[in-house]
Parts: sequence; structure tokens; C-alpha cells
Amino acid sequence: MNVLVQKYGGTSVGTPERILRVADRILAARRTGVAVVSVVSAMGHTTDELMEMARKVTPNPPRRELAMLLTTGEQISISLLCMAIQAKGARAVALTGLQSGIITDTNYADARIKRVRTQRLRQHLAKGEVVIVAGYQGVSNGTEITTLGRGGSDTTAAALAAALGARTCEIYTDVEGVYTADPRQVPNAARLDYIAYEEMLELAGSGAQVMHPRAVEIAMRFGFPLLVKPSYSDGAGTVITEGSKLESVAITGVTTDKDIGKIAIQKVPDRPGIAAKILSALARERIHVRLIIQSVNEGNVNDVTIVVKREFIERASAVLERMCRSLKASGVVCDPNMAEISIVGSGIASTSGVAARMFKALARKNINIDLISTSTIRIACVIDRRRVDDAVRAVHDEFKLGRLKRRAV
Amino acid sequence: MNVLVQKYGGTSVGTPERILRVADRILAARRTGVAVVSVVSAMGHTTDELMEMARKVTPNPPRRELAMLLTTGEQISISLLCMAIQAKGARAVALTGLQSGIITDTNYADARIKRVRTQRLRQHLAKGEVVIVAGYQGVSNGTEITTLGRGGSDTTAAALAAALGARTCEIYTDVEGVYTADPRQVPNAARLDYIAYEEMLELAGSGAQVMHPRAVEIAMRFGFPLLVKPSYSDGAGTVITEGSKLESVAITGVTTDKDIGKIAIQKVPDRPGIAAKILSALARERIHVRLIIQSVNEGNVNDVTIVVKREFIERASAVLERMCRSLKASGVVCDPNMAEISIVGSGIASTSGVAARMFKALARKNINIDLISTSTIRIACVIDRRRVDDAVRAVHDEFKLGRLKRRAV
Repeated sequence: MNVLVQKYGGTSVGTPERILRVADRILAARRTGVAVVSVVSAMGHTTDELMEMARKVTPNPPRRELAMLLTTGEQISISLLCMAIQAKGARAVALTGLQSGIITDTNYADARIKRVRTQRLRQHLAKGEVVIVAGYQGVSNGTEITTLGRGGSDTTAAALAAALGARTCEIYTDVEGVYTADPRQVPNAARLDYIAYEEMLELAGSGAQVMHPRAVEIAMRFGFPLLVKPSYSDGAGTVITEGSKLESVAITGVTTDKDIGKIAIQKVPDRPGIAAKILSALARERIHVRLIIQSVNEGNVNDVTIVVKREFIERASAVLERMCRSLKASGVVCDPNMAEISIVGSGIASTSGVAARMFKALARKNINIDLISTSTIRIACVIDRRRVDDAVRAVHDEFKLGRLKRRAV
Repeated sequence: MNVLVQKYGGTSVGTPERILRVADRILAARRTGVAVVSVVSAMGHTTDELMEMARKVTPNPPRRELAMLLTTGEQISISLLCMAIQAKGARAVALTGLQSGIITDTNYADARIKRVRTQRLRQHLAKGEVVIVAGYQGVSNGTEITTLGRGGSDTTAAALAAALGARTCEIYTDVEGVYTADPRQVPNAARLDYIAYEEMLELAGSGAQVMHPRAVEIAMRFGFPLLVKPSYSDGAGTVITEGSKLESVAITGVTTDKDIGKIAIQKVPDRPGIAAKILSALARERIHVRLIIQSVNEGNVNDVTIVVKREFIERASAVLERMCRSLKASGVVCDPNMAEISIVGSGIASTSGVAARMFKALARKNINIDLISTSTIRIACVIDRRRVDDAVRAVHDEFKLGRLKRRAV
């Protein structure tokens, strides 16, 4: 059985009219002879509206009931999409996370998929039915409803593609594909025909919203391509695939994250394991640290600076304040108004002078670099949030990304 | 374990503010030391809004996906109510129909409860948790979502009260209790302190909206009282209980149904089994017939008249039209603008002249009676819809129901 897994985002199914259009697209794929599994997000702003209702009831909604509440959003969209397909004369079945056999751990708010029991999915596909699956949700302990966290519907689609041995997984979205930069920031940003898994991971991890890194990780591990396509047109989109199949390009994109802050715990006497101690304390509070940097001052005391998403700033500051005394540090300083700009590309490590060119491009615009972090395929700079739009345009121009066309080899 | 089952209707949980008030009421009950199970309907107009979305996708939504869609309404309200109780510092758990062990047959749109697996409910109650259950929904074949049809949340509450051996089942609603007539039609209608199961069944079956007859049937069979109470005040409400515990009253109420029509198949040659033939044909199409009357004309031909709810008129007419030829009837005549007025009371059979008083009261207002049907505790007259408000006031006055106070003996 040749299985195609598709995912449709919330904008694509935002109204009954759009749902009918998505049904047409699914049926067009079905007519090519493949078995189709379509994963769907909640309609438009449904999730935000449900969250708003919860906050009117309590400022801190319990995780179990919040998962139960939010998953109604996808249950609504799969019901309607399945009705639309049946109304057009094809056979289809809508399945919740539980019915799809998506078994997760017991973390209600940010569950990991442990396995997919594909028996029921395969039965429906074997009968020639289109299978519509609720994204973002799973089940633990038999009947407990869990959610997969951010980008959950992408994760559902990739996990089903892996479990069903799909040849490809299509991610339909409200943009034309993956770009060299966010077109709202950089008007001459170019759509990439191809990008390597690793590069996409770094772009997604650095603020590009188009795909969630968990889905990319799954596709990379199981070796099937992800196809990011617009749901409103026949645009070719972007293929995310193995880097070895692509021509080498130094830089494929520049991306920014405007929602970060930095917190420094100052003048910590230097002892082994301090960074580990701080990281464990933050991990216990489920705070994700993007970056941790130790800088040695005179007198053998360190400043330890962490960079976190805005949502974690308050809790992270509280954790560091509590540790101040036991670490014999002098104090905690917090700057919530930072941004991160990153360049990503498989050629960064092998092409000399890439970092220098990036720093010079920023310097020419008088943009101060506060912190720098590098990996084999990414260089990230933390800067003042107010300069981030200038920064991304300067770096995009420096590497002439507006003219980039990545090809398969 | 002393268990109290409560049910809160859609108006009672219509906004986050009202949900917080319902939480207070539940906690007040909990403080008296009973174990509380609260069954909840969908918030306000949620069900109508979901139905409207479905109709924008297709005029005839498939039953399975419609059940999946509509049950999100109750899943939302139980999640929010459970959050509200936890926010007030008590332990609570929200359970969907599946999680509550409400096992039904496979009729997605109008399922019957086959049994309630109470193990999980009892475990939560034993831990001192308030259990919030989604009304109107059940599960068949392990994971298929079904709905219980009209009045489904009342049915859920009564079924749980029966399965858990609850001493009483409270039905919270947006009215003060059961009235001798609809107060919107009859301003001096009186609230009944008590009413017998059988009387309530007839009232509900004759158009009174306050309780669904299925819930009353369950309470009657298992012998626990139903308490219909306002959710917005501390009004005493109405106790629905065994007739033998109540003083005898000829008439307890007058009720109307404005949404009915009659269809006559004319001049059917008289043969045995014609009514049965017509009823079976209608039953196959899932059309509920309220009344069927055969009148013999001259020449040994019958007119067969059926009375149905408005929603069935079109389909019922089509069925009778199709049967016309095989029954050798002369034609089908349909009048969709009828109403039914009923009086209900355990004393009807034993009190002489009740029917005559009702007919005279209508005659004094020049209201024609089109069809009459009687049972031991009910007399129903089909009349012109335009006269129904006059009719109900005339009959209510005739029996001085505005002064009625039913007592327990």
C-alpha cells in the first residue's frame, strides 16, 4: 500500500468553505491511487479561544483538563472535514488521537509519542477510506487524553508517516514554502526548492515558524522527505530531505527570534559543576534554556548568562534568585528585551569567513552583538530586540540570499 | 458511600462566570459529606453553533461524524468546570462519556445506554474527588463516540444515579421547577412541589421541556427521586417521585406542543393490518408517530390520520404518498400547522367529567378539536396552532391550576 500522509494547518481549515477546498485537495491526491491519511489542526483561532475561556476560569489551568479542553479543537475540524469528503461522495473516517492509536507518555501538556498502533488505520486504508486524523493529540493509560505540545500536528503527521511507512509527508500551510528569511521582514527573501533536514532543524529551532523541529527529526530518522506546500495554491513548496542529495550551499537562511531574554547570575565563585547545577534547577521547573554562557571575570568568579524564551523569563529569574545565596553569587540581572538572529547552512563549518562576514554586516549597521553561539551549521547572535529587522536585512543582503536557488544533485 | 448525582444544563454553564458559580454549588453539596457526580451539558448555544457549522459543510451530516462533532460541546464544559473546582481548592476529575464507562449501542445519533461500567467512577469518588461527567455522550465498540439524542444529559444523570445507587438525582435548570403550565403561556401557572413519575412522563411527552422522559423512566424503574431545581437561586424546585407517596390530585398540569402536523391518507379500503403496515413503514424511516387514528367512512373505506412532530412531516408525507397506490387509497392530505394541548394527572381516570370539562372550556373559546387521544392519566386534543395560547389559558383556568399545591402524604 502506497501511503501519503498530509497535514493541514489551522488557517487551511479555518472556515467551512476552506474545509470544503481541503476536501477537494485530498480527493485529488486520492485519485492518483495513493492511500491518504490527512492530519488536521484546530480551525483558525479555536485553540486561542479555548485557552482564553480556560484563563477566565483560572489563571493556572490544570494540565489534564487543559489537554481535554484544547483537543476538542481538532475533534471539531476532523469531524467537519470528514463530513465534507463524504458529502463529495468519497468514503472517509475521522479518528481522534485515541482512535488513531497514537500512544503517548503521561505528560498531558507536552507528551511524547511512545508508539503508533497502526492496526485500525491500516484497516480503514485497506477499505479504500480516506483517514482524517486529529493532530496534536494522543492517549496515555488507555483513555487519558494528552497533547503533543507546540507543533503537535506536524509531529502527528510525521509520526504517522513513519509508522505507516509513507513515501512522503506533505505539510500544507499558509506560506509558499521555506524561505531564506521571513518575507515579512525581508521582502526579497527567496523560497528554497530544497533544504537539508539538519538545516531545517536549525532554522526551526532558531525561530522559523513554518515547521516544528520534532517533525523534522522524525522524518530525518526514518528517511522520508517532508514537503512544505501552500494549501491555497499549486505552488511547488519546499522539499526537506537528506543533505547528501543536495548541492552544497554555504548559507540557506537567516532567521530571527524576537521573543527572548537573557538573565545573568553575577560573580559566581568558580567551582566545577556550577553550570550543571543551574541547568538542573531550571530543568526541574521545565524551563528550556537556549543558551548558557560562562564568562570568567577577574578574581576567579564567573558570570553565568542564560538565554530563554520570553515565557520562561519570570520563572527562570526566580530560580536563579533562589540559587544566588547557595552559589555565593553577587546578584541576578535580567534583560527581557533581546532577540536572536541566526544564519543556517551546511556549508558554515567548511566555508571560511562566514562568521566574520555576518559580524561585519551587523557592525556596519552599528548593531552590537551581546552573545554568540555557533554549531557546525548555525551561527546565532543575541542582539537588542529593537535592531532585529535591520539586522536580518543586513545579513540577508550580505550573503545574497535573495538570489539563492538550492537544487537537488 | 452516599452518592449524589447532579445535572447542570447548558444555560447554567453558559459562561465562565456561571461555571464558577456552579462550582460553588457543587462544593456546597460536597461539604455536606456526600460523594458528588455532576453531569454537564454543552455551554449555552454551543451545540446549535456546531450544528450550524456542520450544515455549512453538508446539508446531511453523517451520523458518526456529527456525534464526534457535537460531543466536543460537553467535553469543553466538563474541562472548564473541573478547572473551576480545582481552582477553588477541591479535588476533581473530568470524564468524557468513554472515560465514565457509559457503554451504548451503535446508534450514533440516538444511542441507548447498555450499561455503565462504574469502576473508574467509584475509584475517583473513593479518593474524595468530585467527578464531572460529560452529558449526552457514550461509547460503543470500545472507542466509537455516540450521542444519546434529545435530553441526553438528563439521561446520563439518571443512568449514573441508577448505576451508582444514588439516593437522589438533582436536575439543575433555568426554571424554578415543574409548573402546572408553561409560565410564558400562562402567567398564573403554579410550581408543583411534587409530581408523580407517570405524570411527569406524560407532561414531558406532551411538550413540557423541563425534563426528558427517558430520565424519568430510569428514575421510576430504579426508584430514586428526581429533584428539578433552579441553578440560579435556592428555590425548592419540584420532586418527581412515586405517585403512592403523594396526595391524589385530578390534574397536575396542562401542556402544549406547537410543533406538530397531521397527515391523512384518505379512503383506504378496509382490510386488517393497515394501521400496522403504515406504522412499520414509518418506523423503518425512524419517524416517531405520536398518534394514529382510523375513522371509518361510508362504503367500508377508512381515513387513517397520523400526528407527528414538525421535523417528520415531510418524510412521513413521502412515505404515505409512496404507499397510496399499494393501499388503493385516494390520496394524502397534510396539515403542518397543528398543535396539541394535553392535561395530565393521576386522577383523570378516577374523576368523572374531566374530559367533558376540558372540551367545554375549549368550546367556550370557539376552539375546534380536531383529534382526541386519551390515556389513564392524560387527555390530548389536536387543535389549530393559532389558538393554542388561548386554549392553554382556558383549560388552566377551568381546573384552577394556578392555586394547585401538590403535597407528599
